Amino acid sequence: MPSRTDLANAIRALSMDAVQRANSGHPGAPMGMADIAEVLWNDFLQHNPANPQWPNRDRFVLSNGHGSMLIYSLLHLTGYELPIQQLQNFRQLHSLTPGHPEYGYAPGVETTTGPLGQGLGNAVGMALAEKVLAGQFNRPGHDIIDHHTYVFAGDGCLMEGISHEVCSLAGTLGLGKLIAFYDDNGISIDGEVEGWFTDDTPARFRAYGWQVIPRVDGHDPEEIRQAIETARAEHDRPTLICCKTVIGKGAPNKEGSESCHGAPLGVDEIAAAREALGWPHEPFEIPEKIYNGWDALQAGASRERDWDSAMAAYAGAYPELAAQLRRRLAGDLPDDFAERAQAWVDTCQAEGQTIASRKASQNSLNALGPILPELLGGSADLAGSNLTLWSGTTGVTADDSGGNYVYYGVREFGMSAIMNGISLHGGLVPYGATFLIFMEYARNAVRMAALMKLRSIFVYTHDSIGLGEDGPTHQPIEQLTTLRVTPNLHTWRPCDAVESAVSWKAAIERRQGPTALVFSRQNLAHQPRSAEQVAAITRGAYVLVDCAQHPQLILLATGSEVQLAVEAAARLTEAGKQVRVVSMPCAELFMEQDAGYREKVLPSDVLARVAIEAGHVDYWYKFVGLDGRVVGMTSFGESAPAPELMTYFGFTVEHVLAMAEEVMFEE
Amino acid sequence: MPSRTDLANAIRALSMDAVQRANSGHPGAPMGMADIAEVLWNDFLQHNPANPQWPNRDRFVLSNGHGSMLIYSLLHLTGYELPIQQLQNFRQLHSLTPGHPEYGYAPGVETTTGPLGQGLGNAVGMALAEKVLAGQFNRPGHDIIDHHTYVFAGDGCLMEGISHEVCSLAGTLGLGKLIAFYDDNGISIDGEVEGWFTDDTPARFRAYGWQVIPRVDGHDPEEIRQAIETARAEHDRPTLICCKTVIGKGAPNKEGSESCHGAPLGVDEIAAAREALGWPHEPFEIPEKIYNGWDALQAGASRERDWDSAMAAYAGAYPELAAQLRRRLAGDLPDDFAERAQAWVDTCQAEGQTIASRKASQNSLNALGPILPELLGGSADLAGSNLTLWSGTTGVTADDSGGNYVYYGVREFGMSAIMNGISLHGGLVPYGATFLIFMEYARNAVRMAALMKLRSIFVYTHDSIGLGEDGPTHQPIEQLTTLRVTPNLHTWRPCDAVESAVSWKAAIERRQGPTALVFSRQNLAHQPRSAEQVAAITRGAYVLVDCAQHPQLILLATGSEVQLAVEAAARLTEAGKQVRVVSMPCAELFMEQDAGYREKVLPSDVLARVAIEAGHVDYWYKFVGLDGRVVGMTSFGESAPAPELMTYFGFTVEHVLAMAEEVMFEE
Repeated sequence: MPSRTDLANAIRALSMDAVQRANSGHPGAPMGMADIAEVLWNDFLQHNPANPQWPNRDRFVLSNGHGSMLIYSLLHLTGYELPIQQLQNFRQLHSLTPGHPEYGYAPGVETTTGPLGQGLGNAVGMALAEKVLAGQFNRPGHDIIDHHTYVFAGDGCLMEGISHEVCSLAGTLGLGKLIAFYDDNGISIDGEVEGWFTDDTPARFRAYGWQVIPRVDGHDPEEIRQAIETARAEHDRPTLICCKTVIGKGAPNKEGSESCHGAPLGVDEIAAAREALGWPHEPFEIPEKIYNGWDALQAGASRERDWDSAMAAYAGAYPELAAQLRRRLAGDLPDDFAERAQAWVDTCQAEGQTIASRKASQNSLNALGPILPELLGGSADLAGSNLTLWSGTTGVTADDSGGNYVYYGVREFGMSAIMNGISLHGGLVPYGATFLIFMEYARNAVRMAALMKLRSIFVYTHDSIGLGEDGPTHQPIEQLTTLRVTPNLHTWRPCDAVESAVSWKAAIERRQGPTALVFSRQNLAHQPRSAEQVAAITRGAYVLVDCAQHPQLILLATGSEVQLAVEAAARLTEAGKQVRVVSMPCAELFMEQDAGYREKVLPSDVLARVAIEAGHVDYWYKFVGLDGRVVGMTSFGESAPAPELMTYFGFTVEHVLAMAEEVMFEE
Repeated sequence: MPSRTDLANAIRALSMDAVQRANSGHPGAPMGMADIAEVLWNDFLQHNPANPQWPNRDRFVLSNGHGSMLIYSLLHLTGYELPIQQLQNFRQLHSLTPGHPEYGYAPGVETTTGPLGQGLGNAVGMALAEKVLAGQFNRPGHDIIDHHTYVFAGDGCLMEGISHEVCSLAGTLGLGKLIAFYDDNGISIDGEVEGWFTDDTPARFRAYGWQVIPRVDGHDPEEIRQAIETARAEHDRPTLICCKTVIGKGAPNKEGSESCHGAPLGVDEIAAAREALGWPHEPFEIPEKIYNGWDALQAGASRERDWDSAMAAYAGAYPELAAQLRRRLAGDLPDDFAERAQAWVDTCQAEGQTIASRKASQNSLNALGPILPELLGGSADLAGSNLTLWSGTTGVTADDSGGNYVYYGVREFGMSAIMNGISLHGGLVPYGATFLIFMEYARNAVRMAALMKLRSIFVYTHDSIGLGEDGPTHQPIEQLTTLRVTPNLHTWRPCDAVESAVSWKAAIERRQGPTALVFSRQNLAHQPRSAEQVAAITRGAYVLVDCAQHPQLILLATGSEVQLAVEAAARLTEAGKQVRVVSMPCAELFMEQDAGYREKVLPSDVLARVAIEAGHVDYWYKFVGLDGRVVGMTSFGESAPAPELMTYFGFTVEHVLAMAEEVMFEE
C-alpha cells in the first residue's frame, strides 16, 4: 500500500513535470496543497469520476486556479476521462488542460478559475444553490439534495475584495456545507506577503460568522482529516480551515519561496525534488499501485447507484416534485413555457402600456415567474429601484432556504460570481440586478459567465443619462459598449414593454450563454407593431417603421431613443422623405442572423444612416460607417432632471433631423 | 450661543429642504450623521474655507456620497464659496451641487463619491500620500506635512469588496492619521441590513490591525468628541469609530427606516421634523448666530498663516527640499523634464531595441524616474511581470514611509482607488500596474479617475492573446475598447520601445486626465522612423510607412500588430500596390488632432482600409467604416504558446493580405 505521502507525491510529480514540459505554469500551489487534496479527495469527496454530471456530487473548486495542475492531477488519478496524454499537453492548443481550469474542457472541472477570488464566489453560489434546492425539494426522510462544496483558496483570493463580499454573505446565509481551505503559505508573486497582507484571517472570518479551524499543518494528513471532520460536523456555519503549507513543497531548493510560484522548477531542481520526495519514476509515469490508491470509479458508481435508489423512492413519494427536480437539473424549461411566454408578449403588445422598461421587466417576472420555480432572483440592495421583486418572491434566509430571492446586499461583484456558481450548480436560473453603471464593479464575473456560457441573467436598470439627478457617477456611457463587445453575451436594451417581455423570454430560453437585460428608469412609449414585427424582435433588430419606397435614410435606435427616431421619421416623412426606423434591442443577436435578413433590414446601398443611443457613440460606427452619424454620448453626463439632460446632450428631434440632413445631403 | 444640536440641525434642515426642493436625493444619511459632522468640523477639522487648496489641510471624504447634502451644508456653513443659492439648486444642471459630490464643482469637495466604497479607497490614498510626503520631506523640528484624513462610510461602503482591500492595506501600512467613521444605522436600501449584513465589523477591522472604537452614540457630541481624541492619540494604526446612528434623525415618522434613505421626506414630514427639531426657520434660512457658530474662516486663515510661517522656516533650513515640495504640490514637472524625456525618446529610436513593451516601460522608468521624485509606483502583486520596479525604487512600509513604491498586494480595485486618492492629495504622481485583463476588477476606479480628470497612470501589461499559455481568463479581448470609450482617458498601446517611451512622457505630462499604458508581454520589433515621424507619435496616430503615390490601401494597427502591418505592406508594395501603414498608439489623442492632420493621415477618399489589432474588432469600424475590414478578435482566446495563438486567430501576413485583397477589389 502506498502511503498518503506517496499518493500526494503523484500530484507533485505530475505538476512539476507538466509545468516543465509546457515551459510555463505554476508548480508551487499544487505541490503545496497536494497533501490537503489527497486527504479531501480520498477520504471525503463524494463524486463519481464516470459521471461528472451526477447532480448530488460534492462540488470542488480550485479558486487559486493558476494551480491548475492540482486539479488535472486529481481528475486524472481518480479516474475521470482525462488521459495522461492530456497532462502531457498541458497548456497546448486544444488540449483539455489549458493554463487555468476552463469549464467545459476537462471533465470534472466545475468552474473556470484564475481571476482570483471568483472561485470562492462560485463556491458560495454552489453551496447556496444546494441549500436552496434542499429547501425546495427535500422532504422528511428524503434528503435528495445533500452535498458539500469544497473550495481551495490562496492568499491572492483572500486579498481580493470579492472574498469579503461572498464570505460575508455566506456567513449571513449560514452555508453550513461550504468548507474552504486557506492555503496559508505566506508567499505571493511579489514575495513574502507580510509586506502587504497582515490580516488576522481567522479573526476576519469569525467576524463573518464562520467556524474557523486555525493553524492546521497542511502537510499532516491526520490534522487535515480531523479538521475536515470538524468542518463537516458543523451544519449552521461555513468553515474555513487555515492550513499552514510550504509552497512548492518537495522542491528542496525552491520550496517556501516565490521562485516556485509561477515558473517551471528547471531540470536540476526537478531532479533534486525526485530525490527528496523519493519519487524515482519517469515524468508522467505513475505506478499501478499509486493509481489503485487514487481510483474512485468503483466508490463513485456505488454512490451514484445509492442516490438513484433514493431518487426512485423520492419519486414514488413525491412524483411531481421529482419530475420538476429532474426537469430543472436537466436545464429544461416547462413544456408550455415558450407558448405562455409568447402569449405574455402578445398581451403586452395588445395592452400597449407606456411604462418604464424596469417596470415592464417586473411585469414580465410577474407573468413568467409563477411557471418558473427555478428562478432565483436578487439584487445588490436595489430591489425597489431594480424592481426585481415580484408577487411570488420569498427571501432565502439562513433558517429558511426554500425561497426564490436572495438579498445580496451591496455586493455587485459577489452577487455576480455567486450567480455564476448557482448556474454552474444546476437546478436554478439566477437573475440578479444592480444599476447598469455598477455592472462595472462586477464586470469580470459577467465576462466569466460569458466565457463559461452560463445561463446567468444580469438585470441592469437606470440605463443612461435618463436616470437624471444622480449625475455622472451613476450615468452609464461606456457600459453598453463593454457589454456588447463581450463574446457570447447577449445584451438587450428594449424600447418598450413588448421588447422587454421578449428580452426576458430570450434570456430564459438561452442555454448557451448569459444575457444582460438593460432597462430604463423612465417611462418609454409603447410602439405599435404587426404580428410579424412582434415576431421579428427575437432577431435582435427589425424594421419598426417603414416607408413606401426604398429608404433614403435609416434611423437606427435602441431603448429610450427609439421613440425619438420614430418622431424624427414622422417629421421627415411629412417632408416627403423615405425613412425607415430600425429598432435594434440586441445587436449581437442581429449579427447572428443570416446575411439575407441583415441586408433586408439594413440594405447596404443605404449609406445615409443615423444611429441614436444615449450611450457612447463609438460602438455604432459598425452600423453607420464612415458616412453615417451617431447621436450619442462622447462625454460623461451631468446631474439634472432627465428631460433637461436629454435636451442638453442632443437627444432631440431637432438634432436628429440635423444629423439626418447631413447624411442625406452627403449622399 | 446655539447648542451643538442647533448647529447640527442646520445640516438637517438644509438637507431635507434641498432634497424636497429638488424632489430627489437622500436626506437620511445627512440627518443621521449631522451630529458627528458637527463635532468633527467644529472641533477638529484643520482647514481653511478661503483656500480649499491649502496643502496641509485635513482631508474630509464622504464615502457614502449619496448623502451629498451633508457636505454641501458643511461647506456652505463654514464659509466656502458655496452660496445658499447653490444649495437651492441642488441636483440642477450646472449647479455646483450635483446629486453626488463631484470633484471640481463645489470648492472643498475633495473627491467624487457615490460609487460605494471608493471614497474609502480615496481616503486611504490621501492618508498614504500624507505619510509618504511626510516621510520624504519632514525633518526634525519641521513637520511640514502633517494632517489627518477623515472619512465617513456607511453600511454600503463596508459591504463592498473594495473596503476589504483598502482597509486591509491601510492596516498593514500603519496609516495612523486615517480616521474612519462608520455610520452604523442598520439600514440600507432594501431595509434592515440584518438580513444581508451581519458582520462583526469591529472584529473585522481589528483583524486588519486597526484601532476600533465601538458603540459610540452618534448623536452624543461628547462621546463623539472623546472618540475622535482617542483616534488622534493613536499614531501607528488607522482608527474606525463605529457610530450608532438613526438614519433620518429628526424626521419623527420616518427616522430609523429605509423610507428616509433615498427620497424626499414630503412636506408633511418636513413640517413635523421642523417641529420635532425645534427649527422654526424657513427653508434655506439660517439664523446669523448659527452661521457664526459654524464660521471657520478666521480660524482657517490663522491656520494657513501658521503653516506659511512653518514653511518659510523650512525653506530657510532646507531650500532645495522646500522648492521641490512647492513644485510638486503645484503639480509642475521639473523644468528640464520635457527636454530630458525627449532625449530619452530619441535614444530609444537610435538604439532600436527589439524588446517587450513592458520591458521598454521599465527602461523608461529607469530613464525618467531619477528626475521624478514625485513618482509613486506600485503593482497589484505583479511587480516581476509588470516590470514596475526600477533601479531607484524603495518600498513604502509602515515604519519607513519615505519610499516611492507601494506593494499593493492582490488588490486591483483598491490600488486604483488609492492611486486616485494619491492624485487628489497632490505632491505625488501615482502609477500602478496589473495585467490588462484585471483592469476589469478595478474598472470603476479607472472611470472615476477619468471623471475627476486625475493624473493617475494605469500600467497594464500582458495586453492580448500574445500572453500565451495563461489562456482565455487572462487574455484581454474587450478591454481596449472599454478603455477607449471612456471619456477623458487616454489609452496607449505602443508598437515598440520608442512609442513606449513617448507614452510614458505623455502620461506624465498630461495634467487633465488619466492615462492607461498598455504593454506587451512578448518582444516587439523596433520600427525605423524619421525625426518627423518620432515627433508625430505624440499626435496619437501617424504614417509609419508610406508609399510613393496616393495610397490604394491603408493598414492601420497598434502594438504588436504594427509589425504585421509593416510586413504585409512590404509584400503588397513588392506586388506594385500603393500601401500606407498608420500606427495608432493612442486613438483618442488622434481624434483630438485638427481635421487637417487627421485627413492627412487617413485621407477620406481612401476607403480601402484594414485595421489590425489583437483586440475586439468592433471598435475599429470607426476608422475603417462599412467598406473596411478588421483583423481582430470576436471570440475569447485559448491557452497555447503565443505564436500558435497568433496564427490560429488570424494574425498572419496571409490573412492581412486576404483582407486587403477584399477591400482593394471592392474599391
